[in-house]
Parts: sequence; structure tokens; C-alpha cells
Amino acid sequence: MKRQILFISDGTGITAETLGHSLMTQFPGVDFEERRYAFIDTAEKAEELRQQLLQQPGDDRLILLTVANQDIRKTLLDLPGQVLDIFSFAVSWMSKALGQAPEQHVGHAHGMVDPKAYQRRIDAINYALTFDDGLGRDYAEADVILVGVSRSGKTPTCLYLALHFGVKAANYPLTENDFDSMNLPSMLAPWKDKLFGLSIDPFRLAQIREARKPGSSYAKLNTCRMEVQFAERLFKRYRIPFLNTTETSIEEISAKILSVLKLEKPLY
Amino acid sequence: MKRQILFISDGTGITAETLGHSLMTQFPGVDFEERRYAFIDTAEKAEELRQQLLQQPGDDRLILLTVANQDIRKTLLDLPGQVLDIFSFAVSWMSKALGQAPEQHVGHAHGMVDPKAYQRRIDAINYALTFDDGLGRDYAEADVILVGVSRSGKTPTCLYLALHFGVKAANYPLTENDFDSMNLPSMLAPWKDKLFGLSIDPFRLAQIREARKPGSSYAKLNTCRMEVQFAERLFKRYRIPFLNTTETSIEEISAKILSVLKLEKPLY
Repeated sequence: MKRQILFISDGTGITAETLGHSLMTQFPGVDFEERRYAFIDTAEKAEELRQQLLQQPGDDRLILLTVANQDIRKTLLDLPGQVLDIFSFAVSWMSKALGQAPEQHVGHAHGMVDPKAYQRRIDAINYALTFDDGLGRDYAEADVILVGVSRSGKTPTCLYLALHFGVKAANYPLTENDFDSMNLPSMLAPWKDKLFGLSIDPFRLAQIREARKPGSSYAKLNTCRMEVQFAERLFKRYRIPFLNTTETSIEEISAKILSVLKLEKPLY
Repeated sequence: MKRQILFISDGTGITAETLGHSLMTQFPGVDFEERRYAFIDTAEKAEELRQQLLQQPGDDRLILLTVANQDIRKTLLDLPGQVLDIFSFAVSWMSKALGQAPEQHVGHAHGMVDPKAYQRRIDAINYALTFDDGLGRDYAEADVILVGVSRSGKTPTCLYLALHFGVKAANYPLTENDFDSMNLPSMLAPWKDKLFGLSIDPFRLAQIREARKPGSSYAKLNTCRMEVQFAERLFKRYRIPFLNTTETSIEEISAKILSVLKLEKPLY
């Protein structure tokens, strides 16, 4: 079953699309065809979109709206399809709960433009880039240090933690030297409470490494199997909490890390 | 007016918090105190949370739920506070619109764990890191090339575009050499359609640079003013679309770029 789903917003459309993706997981049998229409922030753009959709097939399309402006919303409610005006619904609820009328301007919901918060995000990104892959010297400033074998997902997770939570995340790659001694690398030893391990299925790891360095011994299944085994043994030996990233998205890994290390950070 | 707002989920909580932040922008007079409770995915955890909240003040707290599991939801609906079960509401709507019953498992809504999509994201992140700050040689593979003076927001935007949209984004810093000639840098000339400029208020730029290199001539207001002026002149001369990032979040900048360059990429 094929079905169009449209995310329409007078802002970035990120809220509509994020909610939409959550909803779509509940209907795995439907083959959704997604479109995002962001920054529909004037009556003209709204009307133009309406005309455009009227000329296309798909009157049974699903439409998720997150629009703050009343006038634009009127036109959009009238779009050809089944419209869920989720934002108005939630705003009304909140207005009643708070006993306050809402402001109807397009919100800076994402990333909060407050200069201080912005600076924290940027600092965290710079930190992740400086302390990537065992670079950098001193982990005193780190909120978390991700540990794992090469290509287990450390860098993207550090960047996500920085961008979305302003968390300073360093990462340290485990290599043969570490497995020979089976000791915690001396650089990490003073910061045991900040460590979090990433593990991965050796088959998946071999695939990822093969794509990067085809035919290398580094990408061989045996190498991967051995490295992952050693890494998990090290995690267990030093009681480092760890997570298998094979079936886990960057978002889930990040949220788990915050949850396990009890880092209370709001989402940007 | 101070008010607690809780984001509770059996998954990462990202959907609840994203929607919550959008809603909060509509009530700027309220001083919200946010808490996220992620991975509340067993009846025990739900009951534990209920007991915990019962012992804390704040019965007027707002609670945003995004929970797929029915049994857990029952407990959570009973939490002390005003509960908005937004996910159920939207799922019911969608179920009716589709004529299909929903599955009630916790969804992998974020980042889509499909290995191919994951690989695209990772490739895009590697691309952004390799082609950061004028590094890398050939922009043939780039989806977009961000151009702007140092510290105008290029790197965070490239990383966001990579992480969230799998967009391959390079960035090129404009420097004195470019301003002397007022020609488009030769590396960029073949890829005019992929260029997007970032500009920034000189005062804000001076602040950001000062935090990074205190007392440097690089951070002087005059330097910043001149560089920004030249950069904007260059953008106009070559008809490069550009955006002032001063009051714009990384999310908004990214969404604008996709919208202007008509890059149709779903959000991860």
C-alpha cells in the first residue's frame, strides 16, 4: 500500500517530520512517500502550495501541519488530503493547562538562538573535532569519552551529542596495543566514570570496514571478530557500560549514553 | 511563571522533546523547567517514575507522552500532572485515515536503522570532515558547498546537514586573498550551482572570534566588518544565494539551504 505523507510547516518542518517518522513506525505495512514543505510562511506560499497539490493525484494523502500563523493555517486546513493539525491541537491543550493564550508567531523551536546556548553547542562541536579518534591530550573537560574499535560508530555519536545536547564527547579508538596488555589505556585511566563503550556485530563491522578499505586485513571478518571480542572483554573487566550499535541509530545510542551516565542535557 | 514540563517516552524521547520545544515557543512568558525521561519501556520503570513524581511537588506539571506500548501508557496516563498523550491521538488519526490498525511496538523512528541509510549518513559525515575548511580537492561529489568568512557557522551547518539529511556538504573559508581579487576562488568556479553563502552580523562575529582568539586582530570589529562586507559583495557579484546566520539556528540554516537549493532529502 502506497501513500503520500506531507510535512508542512511555516518553520523548518523538523517538528512535523520528526513526529511523522514516529507515527510511520506504527504502520510498517504502508509504503509512505514523503515530502517536506518548509517555510510556508505567507498566505501566497500557502495558496500556491494548495494550487499545486490540487493539480496532482493523491487526494488520500496524509498531511501533518505544524503552523503557528492563523491565517496561513486556514488555507492549509483546506489542502486536498487528510489533514492533521497537530500543532494547534497541542497548543490548545497547553493553553488550557497553563491558563494562558498562545502567541501565534513562528517559533525558534530548534537549536534555540540564545547566544549562550549557541556557544555551548559550538564549543561542544569544536571539542568533538579536537578530541576525535584519540586526538587531544587531556580529558578533564570531557563529559563523556567513547571507547571502541575503529568504525564502531564513535565519531558520528560524538558529533550528535555535541550538536544536539551540547555534550563534550571525546572518543578513543581501541587498537592492538590495548588488546595485548588488556589494560585500560593510561590516558583513560583517570576518567573511568566518563567512559562508555561501543560494540558492534563483527559481520557488520567487516562490511563497514570493507567499504572503506576493500581487501585490507583490517576489514577481514577474523580481525573484526577478534577485536570486538577483546574490546568487550576490556569493557567487562573495567566495568565500562557498553552498547551494541549494530541495530541502533545514532539518536538511540546518544540518548542511551545520556541516560546511563545520567547526563541531564536538554535537546537543542 | 514557573512550570515543570516532562517529556516521557519508551524510546529516546526525541519526538516528545522536539514537539515540546515547538509548543514552548508559543508561551514565551512561562519559565519552563524541563525534564526528559527516556526509555521508560517496562511497566516497572513506569511505576517507579510514578512513585517518584508522587513524592515531588508540582502537581500542575505538564507531561508530554510519546509511548507506543499500551500497558505502559496506562500507568503513565495516571501520572500526577496534566498529561497530553499526543502520540496516541496522532496514531488514532492516522489509523482512521489509513484504515489500518497500528502496531504497538516502540519504533525506530530516528535515524532509521536501515544499513543503507546509515551508510549514507556516515559517508556524508566523513565527507564533511574531509572537506571542512577548504580541505579536500575536488567538489564533484558535493551536494552543497558553504562559503563564508571564518566563524560564520559553516562547520556546524555542514555536520548538521550530514547527520540529519545525509547531504554531502563541503565548506570553503573566504580569506583576504579572495577579497583582494574579488573573484570567485578558482576551486569554486566549476560548481557555482552548489554554492551557498553564510553571512553574519559583524558585532556577533567579533564576539565569537574574541572568545576563540582573545585580543587578536582577527577578532577586531573593524576586521570583521570589512570581511563581512567583502563576503556579501562577492555573494552578490556572483549571485550566490546567502543567509545571515546571526539570529538563525543551525536547524533553520540547514533547512533553508535545502529549500533554496531544492535538495529533496528526508530527515534522518
